Amino acid sequence: MKGINVKMEYDVRDIGLASVGQQKIDWVAKWMTVVNRLRDRFIDDGVFNGKRVAICIHLEAKTAYLALTLQRLGADVWITSSNPLSTKDDVCAALAKNGVHVFAKHGASDAEYNGFIKAIVEAKPHVVVDDGGDICDFFHSHPECASELKGICEETTSGVNRLKELESQGKLQYPAVGINDARSKYLFDNRYGTGQSTWTAITHLTNMSVAGKVVVIVGYGWVGRGIAIRAKGMGAEVIITEIDPWKGLEARMDGFRVMPITDAAPLGDFFITATGEKKVIRTEHMEKMKNGAFLSNAGHFDYEIDVPGLQNIAKSHEHVREEVDEFTLSNNYRLYLLASGGIINIAGGLGHPVEILDLSFGLQLASMHYVLSSKNLEAKFYKVPDEIDEMIVRERLQADGIEIDVDMRDQF
Amino acid sequence: MKGINVKMEYDVRDIGLASVGQQKIDWVAKWMTVVNRLRDRFIDDGVFNGKRVAICIHLEAKTAYLALTLQRLGADVWITSSNPLSTKDDVCAALAKNGVHVFAKHGASDAEYNGFIKAIVEAKPHVVVDDGGDICDFFHSHPECASELKGICEETTSGVNRLKELESQGKLQYPAVGINDARSKYLFDNRYGTGQSTWTAITHLTNMSVAGKVVVIVGYGWVGRGIAIRAKGMGAEVIITEIDPWKGLEARMDGFRVMPITDAAPLGDFFITATGEKKVIRTEHMEKMKNGAFLSNAGHFDYEIDVPGLQNIAKSHEHVREEVDEFTLSNNYRLYLLASGGIINIAGGLGHPVEILDLSFGLQLASMHYVLSSKNLEAKFYKVPDEIDEMIVRERLQADGIEIDVDMRDQF
Amino acid sequence: MKGINVKMEYDVRDIGLASVGQQKIDWVAKWMTVVNRLRDRFIDDGVFNGKRVAICIHLEAKTAYLALTLQRLGADVWITSSNPLSTKDDVCAALAKNGVHVFAKHGASDAEYNGFIKAIVEAKPHVVVDDGGDICDFFHSHPECASELKGICEETTSGVNRLKELESQGKLQYPAVGINDARSKYLFDNRYGTGQSTWTAITHLTNMSVAGKVVVIVGYGWVGRGIAIRAKGMGAEVIITEIDPWKGLEARMDGFRVMPITDAAPLGDFFITATGEKKVIRTEHMEKMKNGAFLSNAGHFDYEIDVPGLQNIAKSHEHVREEVDEFTLSNNYRLYLLASGGIINIAGGLGHPVEILDLSFGLQLASMHYVLSSKNLEAKFYKVPDEIDEMIVRERLQADGIEIDVDMRDQF
Amino acid sequence: MKGINVKMEYDVRDIGLASVGQQKIDWVAKWMTVVNRLRDRFIDDGVFNGKRVAICIHLEAKTAYLALTLQRLGADVWITSSNPLSTKDDVCAALAKNGVHVFAKHGASDAEYNGFIKAIVEAKPHVVVDDGGDICDFFHSHPECASELKGICEETTSGVNRLKELESQGKLQYPAVGINDARSKYLFDNRYGTGQSTWTAITHLTNMSVAGKVVVIVGYGWVGRGIAIRAKGMGAEVIITEIDPWKGLEARMDGFRVMPITDAAPLGDFFITATGEKKVIRTEHMEKMKNGAFLSNAGHFDYEIDVPGLQNIAKSHEHVREEVDEFTLSNNYRLYLLASGGIINIAGGLGHPVEILDLSFGLQLASMHYVLSSKNLEAKFYKVPDEIDEMIVRERLQADGIEIDVDMRDQF
Repeated sequence: MKGINVKMEYDVRDIGLASVGQQKIDWVAKWMTVVNRLRDRFIDDGVFNGKRVAICIHLEAKTAYLALTLQRLGADVWITSSNPLSTKDDVCAALAKNGVHVFAKHGASDAEYNGFIKAIVEAKPHVVVDDGGDICDFFHSHPECASELKGICEETTSGVNRLKELESQGKLQYPAVGINDARSKYLFDNRYGTGQSTWTAITHLTNMSVAGKVVVIVGYGWVGRGIAIRAKGMGAEVIITEIDPWKGLEARMDGFRVMPITDAAPLGDFFITATGEKKVIRTEHMEKMKNGAFLSNAGHFDYEIDVPGLQNIAKSHEHVREEVDEFTLSNNYRLYLLASGGIINIAGGLGHPVEILDLSFGLQLASMHYVLSSKNLEAKFYKVPDEIDEMIVRERLQADGIEIDVDMRDQF
Repeated sequence: MKGINVKMEYDVRDIGLASVGQQKIDWVAKWMTVVNRLRDRFIDDGVFNGKRVAICIHLEAKTAYLALTLQRLGADVWITSSNPLSTKDDVCAALAKNGVHVFAKHGASDAEYNGFIKAIVEAKPHVVVDDGGDICDFFHSHPECASELKGICEETTSGVNRLKELESQGKLQYPAVGINDARSKYLFDNRYGTGQSTWTAITHLTNMSVAGKVVVIVGYGWVGRGIAIRAKGMGAEVIITEIDPWKGLEARMDGFRVMPITDAAPLGDFFITATGEKKVIRTEHMEKMKNGAFLSNAGHFDYEIDVPGLQNIAKSHEHVREEVDEFTLSNNYRLYLLASGGIINIAGGLGHPVEILDLSFGLQLASMHYVLSSKNLEAKFYKVPDEIDEMIVRERLQADGIEIDVDMRDQF
Repeated sequence: MKGINVKMEYDVRDIGLASVGQQKIDWVAKWMTVVNRLRDRFIDDGVFNGKRVAICIHLEAKTAYLALTLQRLGADVWITSSNPLSTKDDVCAALAKNGVHVFAKHGASDAEYNGFIKAIVEAKPHVVVDDGGDICDFFHSHPECASELKGICEETTSGVNRLKELESQGKLQYPAVGINDARSKYLFDNRYGTGQSTWTAITHLTNMSVAGKVVVIVGYGWVGRGIAIRAKGMGAEVIITEIDPWKGLEARMDGFRVMPITDAAPLGDFFITATGEKKVIRTEHMEKMKNGAFLSNAGHFDYEIDVPGLQNIAKSHEHVREEVDEFTLSNNYRLYLLASGGIINIAGGLGHPVEILDLSFGLQLASMHYVLSSKNLEAKFYKVPDEIDEMIVRERLQADGIEIDVDMRDQF
Repeated sequence: MKGINVKMEYDVRDIGLASVGQQKIDWVAKWMTVVNRLRDRFIDDGVFNGKRVAICIHLEAKTAYLALTLQRLGADVWITSSNPLSTKDDVCAALAKNGVHVFAKHGASDAEYNGFIKAIVEAKPHVVVDDGGDICDFFHSHPECASELKGICEETTSGVNRLKELESQGKLQYPAVGINDARSKYLFDNRYGTGQSTWTAITHLTNMSVAGKVVVIVGYGWVGRGIAIRAKGMGAEVIITEIDPWKGLEARMDGFRVMPITDAAPLGDFFITATGEKKVIRTEHMEKMKNGAFLSNAGHFDYEIDVPGLQNIAKSHEHVREEVDEFTLSNNYRLYLLASGGIINIAGGLGHPVEILDLSFGLQLASMHYVLSSKNLEAKFYKVPDEIDEMIVRERLQADGIEIDVDMRDQF
């Protein structure tokens, strides 16, 4: 760590991109109202003053603004990306210019990625934002880096699941807060965030009409529902595939066609996975698809579509357009893979709309504040405290000028 | 009990209505596929044979068919209605003709109502269907009637809440199963059942256009959502009022206007309450309403709209049409109360669509079967067993010809 | 004519139903704002004073109120129904009590129907409301009845087509105004009126869920569109069949499945015809349908479904519920015909929502006023004058409290 | 003309961009099925062989592919852009490389623009694609360039209006075909094309959520309807402003709020003009807007928003992001102008979806073929022949695998 500190304050692709990145950060800054309100609320309490914060999450403009806000609150910020494909080099350059310790490059190799994780963890942070549990793992195998650690704030479902498993095995060594379980996050970013941004990405990448098309959505959880309702709103015919019978019946009652993926394969124009599971679209399905079908993934990981399998059965493969790869099968049908099977709305677009990620990052900011200002958090899994969850949603309502009703139940 | 048995096998308004009621029952029998499939599944196992079943729930054609199915399975059935306003006299007559012990009359007085409850409980049933907890209460105060009781199946949220409270106080004396907590019920009947049937009732009672109107829905729970999505689908502008900030923000992200009821009062053409709480529309709101506004209630009880208050501030009141009452306020504005403030889709209509109530009654039938065939259920609150919940939803999917996917998660 | 006048002032089924009918008329009177505003506008000009008006149109509460309004304006009103199946006997009774010359009975025989037409035409009316052209035909073959006739106001598309044909053949003998061509009519009553009321009728008659069902709509004209958008809004999967390629592609771009009726036949739960053409659902389709499919018609005539054919191929037929007939085919599948194949929203329901028919009847009232107050109308086909069309839509907007923008195009 | 031919075959910004542009053209080529089918249909008839075609229309990848298709059919193609803001320099470079005579640069000055028009007209084309009537005007003032001209195919409403006016004044000198009046165009590209691509552009340029926002749409014609239905589908609250009372009432019956722009001004988050008229959003409205409101235009011209007025009342102006300009008013509220007030979906995005513009360009191709192969077209305005209009829509249906029904009306 010391070595790195001496040798380099940051590691980015091209520091010359800083002004482009800065413009993007300045833009989102205007609309991250909840984060801004929390900043004003915390500005004088000194909780972040001189603290080291490490962040490992998709690194784009909104994440950068979270980092700069922490810096503004007095923290020393170390940041990398949880996924090299979603890293925006211009934004990283801008962070470096601002004195944030940023270690991230679009398309970084595995070796680079591991080096970046190491770099930010060896800063011995007081608090950490984690996305999927990589940082948490690192601490457990390198406890010497956790000497100052007060707690970990985990963003995702999968990371939360890993934390809960660690805890149940009695192996969790540090306090951890599960952001994803807060209502201000899971009720909004999956449905309304992924729902919209998936379609912006697909239509911008392809210039195709969604109206009049058959959209097959694999999975009818929060993400699948969000994508489905927007697809319907854009004039598509929507088919849902599910393994859960209640969700299957819900999808049907919501007006969608429901069938196994095997039956849906020959019908779809756009396929979108949203299950969190592996290989939900496999070569056996691809071989039944229409000529010209599009494959994309809106789940957390990039293994929902069997991309290696696709490469295997294709007789040729061509990169035909930004984030669009054409695979020609032995029947001469062409399938189009978007964003290499990575998360379509981030790897192939701008990520969640600003105001929606603002809710999640408001939760992150307030949870870090909670971790740093709490005494004696134990090495266990914590939910986001209800009062923080409610504060966040109420800040959003206020920012949007929406008034709700007063609870008068005790009066009648 | 014996006395009643001797004196009367049933107590209905007009036995001459039997053929009209029978036609209605025959109709729903065609579409209650889940109940019919369960009947075929249970027909030879003898579980219901010679058992006494008591039912206290809204008494219309679908309920009657549940009773007749139990009878077909060998049970001796005693039935009354949980609400005199929703009782259909023709259906009761048909049940009586079929040899069911039916004690119910539309518009029964409190004294009659209590007598009816007493009549069915004194039959010393082996198993009971309860709706809101009235039968359960009676057993606790008349334990002599529960000498044969194996368990209670409770239909509603409010009844379930009472059971849980009893249990937590250590006072629950009998095994009780909470039907409402099953996914096959709460995911479907509130949203899709109440959602549709509320609008059928309102449009049939009033012959008014919903398109182009402002619909104010008080409460954005399952019921409120169901009504809202259908209102939007019919071309209304929808306003939601809520006290819960997350639900308020969800409603907004779903495209609805959100505001306090005080602000919504002067804007609405149709007001629909769906909160489960008391007096959510009060005279202070009524006095701000437009001339010609309609008031209706889709929540469980009839106290969501302050009807006594409305009667109080009205300078005149006229019954102008079936289930429509006109109240003229001092400003000469007329407000229209539908179905006397009772549950609009039952008191003012045909209740849930057949296939949707079929899910709930399938759960009831299977849960009664479970209670009667289980040994040693304890005096505590039970969830519907997962395998029953899943059997019900899968029967529905099969009946509708809907195939879902196979879970292959362990293979990848 | 004189004879009839002497012998009978009216001919209705049961004068004792008058109070029931009166209540229905009083109800719609509250909401027919455009008609009421026109009444106030015309009340003092004497145009209708002492004039004889003959009306032949579906005879339900709203029509009755149009008649009473004309009476209130000083006219002597003669009325019958354009279709015996849609006639409401209670409403007729109320009209008779009010002194209107009403000749109509629900289920009248052909002979009765012809007698009724004769009765009102022989009154030698000054102006006529016609629906499909029957009255117009009568005048052409009985010119002696038209001695006082100033003009005919035709309600429907098919009547307008007959008028235009007569005119092009040089045979039109009387001035005629085509109400259906006015924007205030065709843009609203087909889509928003039929769209909603068709679904109220179907759900009220059947108590079935629309959510989760396949709805096949034959024809994607104004009526078909209205029914389709509401079906989608209620959670159905919608299939459109069309012969027009542009409408077919529009339906597809609106998100609906599009296919020939032969392919749709085995898929549908609800079939609704809306073409204006004959036998669009034939036995060859019925024989492919699912067990339990529902057949209904929302087009103008009752010949869109081949009902005689259905009777022919059915091995048995049973009337199972109000306006529901069950036909069992040789494969033992049961098909359900609603409202005998007549117009579902009128014969099986309450007709258009009040405010929407109010637009059409406002046009009728203003057009009759125009006919009676014009000098020298020629024996040709007239459109509703633009200023009347605009007056009607503006009265509706005002009644609904909707303000639109001012045209400032000449200023920039 | 000769001079230009000698001196330069093309005039583009940067020929080095050709490979980037070629990739874009290759992409759309895959999906322009109607154009491709027509190419195969016309390939052997020689109609385009050796003919000079001049095109003046928004110049992006799809237009380029139309040009290359004409070249493939044997024509010599001259092309410029109807609007310098929508010109894509990479696509122009690719055309130049392919031997098309392309004269166009993004952001060309007025002088350059006029030179480009001159260049393509002086080629003495046999047939012309015009967009708004500029080429047509040029011919009328420079008849010497029209020596070989067989006809003009006009794309837009406004161009068609100019043609009809010329004809009515007896001044039209050349045959002209109005593409926009064909059903295969106006029924599809305005609603489904602009509807979707406007929202892709706005969400991609801003990264904002549409769900939960107030969208004010000025004008409820085909374009406004398309944008409105998609906004609703994305979870927005939609307000419509109109000057036409029927459209205003339709918007209301479709569930939208309707009010004058003056009342909508303080409510909107996104304002979108779609009227074809000048200055429909003026400074008097801007001064009432919320802090942070977005202004964009989806109408044909860039004068619907009073941009000069906005510049005038703003105390400062900053270009904050690609196609986003921030204007700070004297009240310190910031308004954001998208795409400089030009057509948002073209200037700020990728234009119509490929398959939808394919319909319009199919019409263009077939209409040019019609012009070139007809004998004795007169100097008057022609509709696209019905058989061409129908051929286009049927090609699209076939390409999409959609079968419609057969017309059997003569059989019943």
